Formats: sequence, structure tokens, C-alpha cells
Amino acid sequence: MKTNYSLSGMPDFNPLENKKRDYLLSVIKQEFSLFGFLPLVTSSLEKRSNLFGNYGNEGDKLIFQILKSGDYLSKLDSNLTNINSQDLSAQISDKALRYDLTIPFARFFAQNRSNITLPFRRYEIGSVWRADRPQRGRLREFVQCDADIIGDDSLWLEVDLLILIQTILNKFGLNDISIKINNRKILEGIFFTFKTNRISFLEFCTIIDKIEKIGLDKVSSLLLEKGLSKKTVLKIRDVFVFQGSFEEKKHYVLTNFQHNTTLNTGFNELSFIIDQCYNNSILKNVTFDISLARGLDYYTGSTFEVISNNNKKISLAGGGRYDNLTSKFGVDNITGVGVSLGLDRLYLELDSLNLFPSNIQPFLDVLFINFGIEESVKAQSYISEIRKIGKSVELYPSTVKMSKQMSYANKKGVKYVIMLGEEELKENVLKVKNMQSGAQKSMIFNELLKVLIHNE
Amino acid sequence: MKTNYSLSGMPDFNPLENKKRDYLLSVIKQEFSLFGFLPLVTSSLEKRSNLFGNYGNEGDKLIFQILKSGDYLSKLDSNLTNINSQDLSAQISDKALRYDLTIPFARFFAQNRSNITLPFRRYEIGSVWRADRPQRGRLREFVQCDADIIGDDSLWLEVDLLILIQTILNKFGLNDISIKINNRKILEGIFFTFKTNRISFLEFCTIIDKIEKIGLDKVSSLLLEKGLSKKTVLKIRDVFVFQGSFEEKKHYVLTNFQHNTTLNTGFNELSFIIDQCYNNSILKNVTFDISLARGLDYYTGSTFEVISNNNKKISLAGGGRYDNLTSKFGVDNITGVGVSLGLDRLYLELDSLNLFPSNIQPFLDVLFINFGIEESVKAQSYISEIRKIGKSVELYPSTVKMSKQMSYANKKGVKYVIMLGEEELKENVLKVKNMQSGAQKSMIFNELLKVLIHNE
Repeated sequence: MKTNYSLSGMPDFNPLENKKRDYLLSVIKQEFSLFGFLPLVTSSLEKRSNLFGNYGNEGDKLIFQILKSGDYLSKLDSNLTNINSQDLSAQISDKALRYDLTIPFARFFAQNRSNITLPFRRYEIGSVWRADRPQRGRLREFVQCDADIIGDDSLWLEVDLLILIQTILNKFGLNDISIKINNRKILEGIFFTFKTNRISFLEFCTIIDKIEKIGLDKVSSLLLEKGLSKKTVLKIRDVFVFQGSFEEKKHYVLTNFQHNTTLNTGFNELSFIIDQCYNNSILKNVTFDISLARGLDYYTGSTFEVISNNNKKISLAGGGRYDNLTSKFGVDNITGVGVSLGLDRLYLELDSLNLFPSNIQPFLDVLFINFGIEESVKAQSYISEIRKIGKSVELYPSTVKMSKQMSYANKKGVKYVIMLGEEELKENVLKVKNMQSGAQKSMIFNELLKVLIHNE
Repeated sequence: MKTNYSLSGMPDFNPLENKKRDYLLSVIKQEFSLFGFLPLVTSSLEKRSNLFGNYGNEGDKLIFQILKSGDYLSKLDSNLTNINSQDLSAQISDKALRYDLTIPFARFFAQNRSNITLPFRRYEIGSVWRADRPQRGRLREFVQCDADIIGDDSLWLEVDLLILIQTILNKFGLNDISIKINNRKILEGIFFTFKTNRISFLEFCTIIDKIEKIGLDKVSSLLLEKGLSKKTVLKIRDVFVFQGSFEEKKHYVLTNFQHNTTLNTGFNELSFIIDQCYNNSILKNVTFDISLARGLDYYTGSTFEVISNNNKKISLAGGGRYDNLTSKFGVDNITGVGVSLGLDRLYLELDSLNLFPSNIQPFLDVLFINFGIEESVKAQSYISEIRKIGKSVELYPSTVKMSKQMSYANKKGVKYVIMLGEEELKENVLKVKNMQSGAQKSMIFNELLKVLIHNE
């Protein structure tokens, strides 16, 4: 049996896959820049205490923790005999792999507060790690592409982020998508009317967030189990089942639940955004979804999520507003809002819909056949000149038989194979084979350069 | 006192730093491609057992290990009372952060052997992690840029890699560098003549590798401590002290040490490379340094290291040939050779020599001043058009006083500030301020587009 040396859910990407990923990344980076976002790179590891407490109970369990270096046991202050895994981890680990790019951004902001002009628009593209059960579209290492603005509570920022997401997805030819939008204050306002202390609002959100995954029935059961009354749970079901326009849904909620400031603020904020969606044809896919909760603890206002209509199980992007995230790092009263696109999910989506441009292929412009040492010395001098005009070129490294060298050329997608053998060396010419047409022609080196420049 | 929320040696990079890093990365990627290398991305984490045993005793200690998830203690098969940290780690950790990009490449190759045409040229650019003591030029998370060729023992590959490094460094204006080259077989051939079993050849290399750091005297003491005879140690000192051309050094070694196949092969290999360096003017900085050992256990042939003459303590790049690296992953008889450039050290070097192009600056093409809701709705429609022509633009998110918005424009390096107030809205014009010249002009939107396209 073949030993498996790689880790499940931790993928590698081969050259073809990377060419496709580079295409995605270059479009995303360009749009982020056009929208005024500046690049930030934060460390992959964070202090363990920076991470825990942000992602809900279930999220926290997915954080990868790093063992302290050296003889960490000698510094332990408690007895090992009765310790459990969780308590031990807190003593022998002080670092962890980041779970998202939002907390590191908040931490960076707090650390560099005095050098940053507000509002601060940054993007970051990088890996995050979650010890989740791997499956299609859910990896344990994956790349997030985040754009956030910190330091301004204007709802124009939400609008701009929605336009940003839609623009990027359109560039990729992903038109059949739904952008769901909600506001935590609406959920909070509704939750407030239950007057329950059986569960916290955040627990409520975590449960609501499961609707897509496990269905409304199971979510109702969970809420009943938590001690909410049957009447309350039925009322919640009804509001999630209710269909209609934004105005109709708003009317339904305001008719069926007792008004409060939080609920009203939530609807006011959402109304502004929905109005701008009417004004802007690019935002025609935005719909209000009152069941959209998002799993993360830190959202306090708008939340959004982008679903492909092709595969509704996979969310391509998500985000929202967080009002107090930097408090954790000692800076109060700073609001932020952001979106995160999942690179690996975008990849899956484009791949399954055949949306990658067909010319994305690894290739090599020129290969020199290796005929021996003297010929190779000459080839090497030409090779440097060819690279200077921006064409990729290799000398086949060994003097093996021609068929093997040609087979390599074919598999690597070489455009021109150059034969510079004993005779060509003597006559100071090159035999150039166009691998696509099959045509073969002798020429001097300067002619070859012209052929390469004009792609003849 | 300000709490420190970030980890020592794990850096963040602000927008200006990232613009500079992107410049470095784009040049490096382009040259890698021109030399026929294809992009590979491997996972950041590896099975713990993949990593240990490759980096020498001292290197292995620097590997960051990841705690197993869940209740790992319940699955422990030994008593915790008498366990030491090292043994416990082996039981509660099964994953680790990669220490370099070479082992992951060997692992990837072994796992994908059947789909890969040899020789296989790949590049990979990514973070690696080492629990080293942080200092200038030595971080705990840093980016390596690696180019390797696997599956061919031709020494033309070494030559090509040396040209590659030199080409990249020249592009950056780094001309005052030394490329040191050696061959492990020469060191091994010399070591063989000691007929010692006090230390292994790899231990010998680890000690020799310290010459640059701690000096020849301390290295001699270490060798004496290990049990090598005074006579042997003096002979080693002499060979490291000897100055001369490659031919003179070769003659010196072959005169003073007993000949053996390994020693001869080492010199034959090196001679070929040195010959090509004479043939190629770009390789004039390459010199033979018999004391170059490299700290990694896996090198078996050529080794190289690039030192800046500006700061001799910092090695900018290094590499070498490894003959049996994939055996660890079940694939025998595959040789490889590669180089690794340190992105963070290149950055330091260019920065200290003022070699970054002066136009690398974060900026924003256009900022619309926010005058209120109606004006902003109109601005938003223009903004989409401006982004379509590839210019970056933002609407200032809130209607705050003008001076605050202008101060933001100045700090963000905005080129054009657009005023679209009540009056302009009525007259369907825009007031455009060129922030560099200070000139201000009213125009219709199409004129603005022309100004932006021609950068007037």
C-alpha cells in the first residue's frame, strides 16, 4: 500500500492549477486596488489569546494551536495527572494559526493606530487554517481574499463592498449568483422580544446560521431544546418562511414583533443599502434574507453572503460590519466592515462551470536540444539573449537521445524547439521547429529573435 | 504600558512595504518563468514525520509543531508523570509548519510521480517558519523563493541556477555580491581521509558551517572537543585559510589530502561549473569556497551561497544538489538541485542600499468629496465608470467637513479630488482638483475621463 505523506484538507497545487489561481488572484487584486484598498500582509501566527473567543464555541475548537518550543513541560505550573486537554493546551501553547484575516487586521490596526489615516481601506490575501472536517469546498488550509474599511460607519461602505463583490464575480463570468444581505440588529431586535435568558443572542445566531446546512426543522428542534417556548419558535419559523419583497418582509416583521430601537435601526440601515441597490443595476442580485446570521461572533450590523445558484451549498463570499472588534486589542469605538472571498471556492465554481479562459496553460517558449558540451556552451549564450527579450527558454540538461528530448518538449508545451548540432554550430545557424505547425527552418540567431518577438 | 499583541519575529507588512515586496516578487516570478520554472504551491503544514531528520539536530529543534485537535490526552498511550517534552510532543502533535520549501517539494514529487515529466522545473514562493531567535535578517516567519529541478544530474542545471540568481540580483541593482560555490563531495573526500568515527560527516558539516558565525578558532576548538586529533584540525585550518584561484586551491587539496573517488568526483563536478563561469561573463562573481558547508543535512553535491559584500553577515540566497531527498517519501534514485532566495533579506538589502524604484508608493487616482446623499448617488454612478477605465477611485464615505476629507486625500496620495456639490449636480459638471499642481477646473464627466486616461 502506498503511504500517504500528505495531510488531509491541506492541498498542494500543480502548475496548471496555479496558473488558474494566479488568474483569479490578479483579477481580485486589481479590483481591490481600483476600489482604493491597499495591500496588507499580517503574520500567519497570532498569539493564542488573540484568537480564542471570536468564532463562537464551535469555531474556537477549529483553531490550530502551536506547541511552545523547547522543554515546555519543565515550566508547567500544574500537575499533569488530572489535567484535561483544553487546560493543558492553554499552558503548552501560546501561538495559533490564524482562523481568518479579520482578527489579524484588527490587531494590526490597534498596534499601528498612530500611523493610520482613517477611514483605512486595506486588502489582504492569504491562507487561513481551520481544523474542520475536510470535504468538497471545505479545506483545512484555504486562501481568503479580504477587503475591509475601518474607521467610518457610513453605509456607503457596505454599498461599495457589495459593488466590489459583484464586479469581481462578473469579471469571472459568474452571473448566476445571489447576494444575501441582513443586519444583525434586526435579528437582535427580534431576539430581544423573546425576553429569554435561556440562550444568548450569539448562541441564537450560531443556531440560526445552521438553517442552510441542517434545515429549518432541525433548527427549530435545537431552539426548543435550548428552552425557547413553542410559541416563540413557531413565530421564528414563520418569519423565516415568509416570502416577499424587502418592504413586505420589513412590514411583516414590524407587524409581528414588538418594536424596539435595535430592530428599527437595523431596518433603517438595511433600507439605505436596499435603496442603493435599486439605484444601481449592478446590485440587482442583492436580496434581504432575514435568516442570514453568519457564524462569526464579531458582526454587529450588516451581514452579507454570496451564494452561487449553481451550487447553493457553497458560499463564495461573505462579510459584514463589526463595531467593537478592536476593543479586544485596546482600541475602542472603531467600527469596521469587510468582505471575504474564498479563493478555493471561486476556483471550484469557475472550474465546474468551465469559466477559466482556455489559454491558461503552462508552457515554454523555447527548448534547445542538448547535442553535447560544445553545442551547449553556444546554446547557453543564445539562451541568455532570448530571456532578455522576455521569452522563456531552457537547454535540455543532458545529451540523451533525441526522442526523449522531443517527448519532454511535447509534454511541457514547448512552442519552438531549437536544434544546434555539430553542423549548425559549424555553419553558425539554428534549425528551428515550430511545434504547433510542425514547420522546420534553418536561420541565423537574429532571425530567431524576430520569429520569437512576432510569434511567427 | 502598552500590551504587545503581536509575536516577536512574526512580521506584518504595511501597504508601502507590500508595494516594495510586490515589486521584488514580480521580478523574481518573471525570471523564474523565463528560466522555464513552473509554479507550485504546497501546503504550509506537513506531517510531523516528514520534517524531522532533515535539518540537522539544531534545525529540527526549530520546527514549529501543531497540537492535535480535540481531546488528544484521552488517546495518549503513556503515563504523563515521567514523560519529557520531546516524547510528549511526538504523541500530541502530528503536524508541523514547514521549515523550508524543499522537503515539501520532494514530498509533492513523490506523491505525484506518475503525472510529472522529468526533468521537472518548479518554483515555489511561500512562507516558512523557524523557531529561531529573532534578529535583523532572521525572522520566525519568512518568505523563500525557490527554484529547483528534479530528475537530472547534469551540471548544466547548476550553471543555469547560478545564472538565474545573478540575473535576478542584477535586475535589483545588487551588483556587489559574491557567489560562493563548493561541493559536499570535496568536504566528504577530505573528511574521509581523517578516518575518524568520533563524528559523522554531517556533524562535521554542521560545525564547518559555523565558521562565518563564530570564526575559525572556535570551530577548531569544537573539532578538537569532538575528538579529532590536533594534527587533523591544523590540516583543516590550513586548507580553509589557503588563498588562491580555483586551480591553486584544487592543487593544494589534492597535494595535501589522500586522493579518493569522492574527492575526485567533487573536483570534477566543480571544474565543469567553474569552466562555465569563465565562459559566461555574468558568472564573474562565482568563487570556490571550500569552507562552504551549508547547514542542511540533505545536500550531497554542489552547494552555493550568495553573500552581499555590503553586509557579509547576511546570505541572500543559497542552494545545492540533493541526491536522495525523495527516498524519504518512497521514491529512490532521483536527484535534484535548487536555489532559495530570501525575500525578507533581499528587501533589507535593497532598502539599506536605497535600490527600490522611487515610484513605488501606494496612491489613489481619484477621490470624490462627499457632499451628501443626492450628490453621492450621482458620484457612485461616475465611480463605476472610472473604475472601468482602470483608475482607482473612492467616494469619501461620510459627509464630514471639507478639511477632513482633503486631509485624507493628502495622506492617501490622491491624484485628483473631485467636487460634486449641490451646484455642480445642478449644472451637471464636476470640479476637478489636480493635487500635484493645485490647479482646479470645472468639466463634464467625459472630460474627466480624458484627463484621467492621459494623466493630465
